Amino acid sequence: MMVIRSCAEMSALAEQQRLQGNKIALVPTMGYLHAGHLSLVKVARQKADWVVMSIYVNPTQFGPQEDFARYPRDFDRDLQLAESVGTDLIFAPTDIEMYPPPHLTQVVVDKVTAVLCGASRPTHFQGVTTVVSMLFNIVKPHIAIFGQKDAQQAVVIRRMVADLHYDIQIIVSPIVREPDGLAMSSRNRYLTATQRKNAPVLYRALQKAKARIEGGENDPSAVQEEIRRTLTSVDEMRIDYVQIVDGETLQPVEKLDKEQNILLAVAVFLGNTRLIDNAIVYT
Amino acid sequence: MMVIRSCAEMSALAEQQRLQGNKIALVPTMGYLHAGHLSLVKVARQKADWVVMSIYVNPTQFGPQEDFARYPRDFDRDLQLAESVGTDLIFAPTDIEMYPPPHLTQVVVDKVTAVLCGASRPTHFQGVTTVVSMLFNIVKPHIAIFGQKDAQQAVVIRRMVADLHYDIQIIVSPIVREPDGLAMSSRNRYLTATQRKNAPVLYRALQKAKARIEGGENDPSAVQEEIRRTLTSVDEMRIDYVQIVDGETLQPVEKLDKEQNILLAVAVFLGNTRLIDNAIVYT
Repeated sequence: MMVIRSCAEMSALAEQQRLQGNKIALVPTMGYLHAGHLSLVKVARQKADWVVMSIYVNPTQFGPQEDFARYPRDFDRDLQLAESVGTDLIFAPTDIEMYPPPHLTQVVVDKVTAVLCGASRPTHFQGVTTVVSMLFNIVKPHIAIFGQKDAQQAVVIRRMVADLHYDIQIIVSPIVREPDGLAMSSRNRYLTATQRKNAPVLYRALQKAKARIEGGENDPSAVQEEIRRTLTSVDEMRIDYVQIVDGETLQPVEKLDKEQNILLAVAVFLGNTRLIDNAIVYT
Repeated sequence: MMVIRSCAEMSALAEQQRLQGNKIALVPTMGYLHAGHLSLVKVARQKADWVVMSIYVNPTQFGPQEDFARYPRDFDRDLQLAESVGTDLIFAPTDIEMYPPPHLTQVVVDKVTAVLCGASRPTHFQGVTTVVSMLFNIVKPHIAIFGQKDAQQAVVIRRMVADLHYDIQIIVSPIVREPDGLAMSSRNRYLTATQRKNAPVLYRALQKAKARIEGGENDPSAVQEEIRRTLTSVDEMRIDYVQIVDGETLQPVEKLDKEQNILLAVAVFLGNTRLIDNAIVYT
């Protein structure tokens, strides 16, 4: 498995692979890999000839009060894990490689970035779309794999790819969970033992809500209310949002309807740690 | 010469060309071709195996009070002219192909878009960078050729390409002028006979200023003042801006200096027609 730090070198290698007729898959990550990331590589491995994982903790997608500095990093462990599932190349650029000054360009997606996590993290998705666009231009993938755990990110990236006419197939791969239901996340390591024990309440609340909707409930506010009650039964739990939205526009749904692609999305703070989770209904 | 209207078809053809190892050049235009555009194709023809000209009057780079609706169009004549200089393919998409709703994504470049033409046309460059980014993703060129006539556009595109790590070589080709010095522009057709006779004053003012700086004048405001005086000696002439700026940052220059790449840039209204021109000093 190769490790590349330079954008120019990465770009040249990708060009070579494309000229040889090889299909390139990109799995963008911020490292500190867990089974969720590895499941993305496994999908990539099946679909492409050459699997590139980027490991880059992108500073521009963190707000000033957020956890950029303390975001967990373990590069050596990441290399072992990535190699174990068949990654061909790790692209791990430095900040100065990615954002040489003066860096003045942003890729901005409107509307779908203004809701849910975008409401609490106003510059987050602009950082994501800009860095993903940069990674697309450098790694030149035919396919890119994202996790459904970051449901809004997946919607935003699909929107950007369609709008800017990137010739890249976006695959969104299912959430990988711990045995007790907690969605895998690099941020789970921030949790205390008690918080970790309580964290699966997100999954349980979402599953109960999904079952209730599939059982015929058509009032979104009743379902949201029940999710809120379940979540706040847990110590140290503060709700950022609980929303039932259209799975493509991310706009609130007035009435639950079997014809619609519905996303149940929650974000909470458990102590100081922000956790997100979601469930898809009717697709 | 092929004519393609569909983004998907264009993208597939470009992919084929790349797989065959052919070098693709893109010449983006809004049509109503003149010798300036054709000079760009000639450069492209020398540098690439496959020359694509896009002809697309991009609505998003026109302001609400601007000339989008009456911008001159003559597609049949354009096809003849493009073919005469060796264009391989014309990409002429429709608006609905380029911007299928909901189109929510913009590519935005800061600072270098806020000055000169960007000050008078606040949404112009956002429209340009977005559409050029789309064209890059669809046509997948190795090289793209722009005209020095739109000096600020060239700077903005170079910035976007560097910032987003597009693996595309940008070539900026010299201004082509009428025998009397007027820079070729599709908008020259808006001029009345008298305006057309007076229009070369832009070129004369810039040449005089350039000679004065190269002769040792180091005060930019003195030079700007002289350009203004020369321009306003002409009937129906209203100045939008006369600026002496750094050729890369486009920020005003305090003192003229032989070490610096200096751009003299002017924009005027002659009657209702907006004309721009520029000169480079010391490079």
